[in-house]
Amino acid sequence: MSEQKPRIGLTLGDPAGVGPEIIVGAWSRPEMHQECRPVVIGHPTMLRRAADLWKIEAEIVAIDAPERAEPSEDCIPCLACGPDDVVDVAPGTIDARSGQAAYEAVVAGARLALAGRLDAITTAPLHKEALNLAGHPYPGHTELLAEMCGVGDYAMMLYLAPGEQVRGRDGLAAVHVTLHTALENVFAELSEEGVLAKARLADRFMTKLSGRRPRIGVCALNPHGGEGGLFGRQERAIIAPAVERGRAEGLQLEGPLPADTLMIRARDGEFDAVVAMYHDQGHIALKLMGMHRAVNVTLGLPIIRTSVAHGTAFDLAWQGRAEVTSLIEAIRVAGRLARSS
Amino acid sequence: MSEQKPRIGLTLGDPAGVGPEIIVGAWSRPEMHQECRPVVIGHPTMLRRAADLWKIEAEIVAIDAPERAEPSEDCIPCLACGPDDVVDVAPGTIDARSGQAAYEAVVAGARLALAGRLDAITTAPLHKEALNLAGHPYPGHTELLAEMCGVGDYAMMLYLAPGEQVRGRDGLAAVHVTLHTALENVFAELSEEGVLAKARLADRFMTKLSGRRPRIGVCALNPHGGEGGLFGRQERAIIAPAVERGRAEGLQLEGPLPADTLMIRARDGEFDAVVAMYHDQGHIALKLMGMHRAVNVTLGLPIIRTSVAHGTAFDLAWQGRAEVTSLIEAIRVAGRLARSS
Repeated sequence: MSEQKPRIGLTLGDPAGVGPEIIVGAWSRPEMHQECRPVVIGHPTMLRRAADLWKIEAEIVAIDAPERAEPSEDCIPCLACGPDDVVDVAPGTIDARSGQAAYEAVVAGARLALAGRLDAITTAPLHKEALNLAGHPYPGHTELLAEMCGVGDYAMMLYLAPGEQVRGRDGLAAVHVTLHTALENVFAELSEEGVLAKARLADRFMTKLSGRRPRIGVCALNPHGGEGGLFGRQERAIIAPAVERGRAEGLQLEGPLPADTLMIRARDGEFDAVVAMYHDQGHIALKLMGMHRAVNVTLGLPIIRTSVAHGTAFDLAWQGRAEVTSLIEAIRVAGRLARSS
Repeated sequence: MSEQKPRIGLTLGDPAGVGPEIIVGAWSRPEMHQECRPVVIGHPTMLRRAADLWKIEAEIVAIDAPERAEPSEDCIPCLACGPDDVVDVAPGTIDARSGQAAYEAVVAGARLALAGRLDAITTAPLHKEALNLAGHPYPGHTELLAEMCGVGDYAMMLYLAPGEQVRGRDGLAAVHVTLHTALENVFAELSEEGVLAKARLADRFMTKLSGRRPRIGVCALNPHGGEGGLFGRQERAIIAPAVERGRAEGLQLEGPLPADTLMIRARDGEFDAVVAMYHDQGHIALKLMGMHRAVNVTLGLPIIRTSVAHGTAFDLAWQGRAEVTSLIEAIRVAGRLARSS
């Protein structure tokens, strides 16, 4: 990529949620501009309203190509997209119009990134039900983007930059082998191939981010790591063989390890990444380590995509109370990944 | 109980593990004596060795009845029990002799507590395999004590006193509906009755500890709390009805709530206790919130029993490096419970 700061598209998310206000709220923070050139993708009126909410005087400048964006603290370039009737949606409500607006912003952002006209996208949260009402039956961003990019081998990762609780030099990543599925389905969905594939994605991500081979801890599925087979068979049948194969490929894997103590060791800097077997295993840990700082990264796409780790927060949307830290972290991670591409 | 400080029996645990050294290490800390009268139950020679390891000059005084104990920083009263050949066991090894020693100490302590001659017991860790080698096939203390006390309705709880991370006034308790079982078995073991029973135990414990009715958050089993049935059926079929019944009884229950965000709210003081559906759900969270401070409490017994939340730590036993915080916390919680009995 060029010597210039990476150009990052910020998709507005569901306009009835916190998306517009976190984007505008983060805009006035210096971190937003130090390392990247942000451009917003969504409806300019919603952006204007969010600026009024925060009493921010920055100008919203409608542009028709990301190359024309000249972002600064006083100027928010906006690639207008989405239906105009979204301006009538009440804050904090589930509405097909906002679902459609969120959808169009993500699709526009992903297309520009696929065409190389954006170096990365960072997405504000969408509401699954609104998305579905608009006729787009995806469980979330991850699956929509995977389909758009035509990839089958992808993963949802949570990432925390180094901080008060995360002591590793390059932060901590948690990649999930199974994700948005009932816990009861995990046993059928878990496979040696799956564990290995996610370990490889974690390895590739952290290598790219840090410039060195990461140490990856692989969670056991069962309590006490299966207690030698007494509390479950998946450690021996699935996870250990996957770890062995990964090691043979050169990955620095350790596991399967009891998840409760592995998470402490990971927090304390012994590991750069963990492979979690199911959603809550990774999410309980990383959210406790840094609720507002957690960043969601989709691994395995041909484009760089990061996101806040929270939802639309309809209960507090459009009240000027939303926390902007996660968005700033998501943009910083996108920028760092884009620079190392 | 009397006006005197409660008398707490400290069982030595597996002598090849960290038990003896954490007991002696904690002995010289003032917190050990401020609120209780401790008496050790185990082999005096192992205790002497642990004192030598820490270079502590306290006298080990063999006694034959807990009523004769006169503990102080300079005097460690010891109710001798267990086989003499345990003194030949190598540190950090699995041995039937230490399994037998650990067993006899727990049985002696529990009998004295059942007879009202001790106000509580706090147990140092035993090693399951050594216990089994000695012919006592229990998964751990909890099940052994439940059998000795003849109770079927009991639960393993982790408790964290208020501290840096736990902001609730009375700390945070996590009680587990299922525990030492393969994750795959959780679905068959989970029942409305079970969730309700554990919620009642958590309510009784925290009411006793704090003198007021606790607010209890009940974890969902599935990611996103089941996402309205899309990611699992147990929230609607089992957990919600249990919460409803508990509320009708006067328990202050809320749930089922997505576990990842519930744990953050609980840490921040919104709840006094959580009901976890399986081992790692509770353990990942509470260990991250306070690894060395976590106390294990057996609920539902007619006696008070607390324990450290860690194991025998054979890898660092008898090196004078073991962390004594968890034992001190366990003794403090036992004392607090005994005083409020």
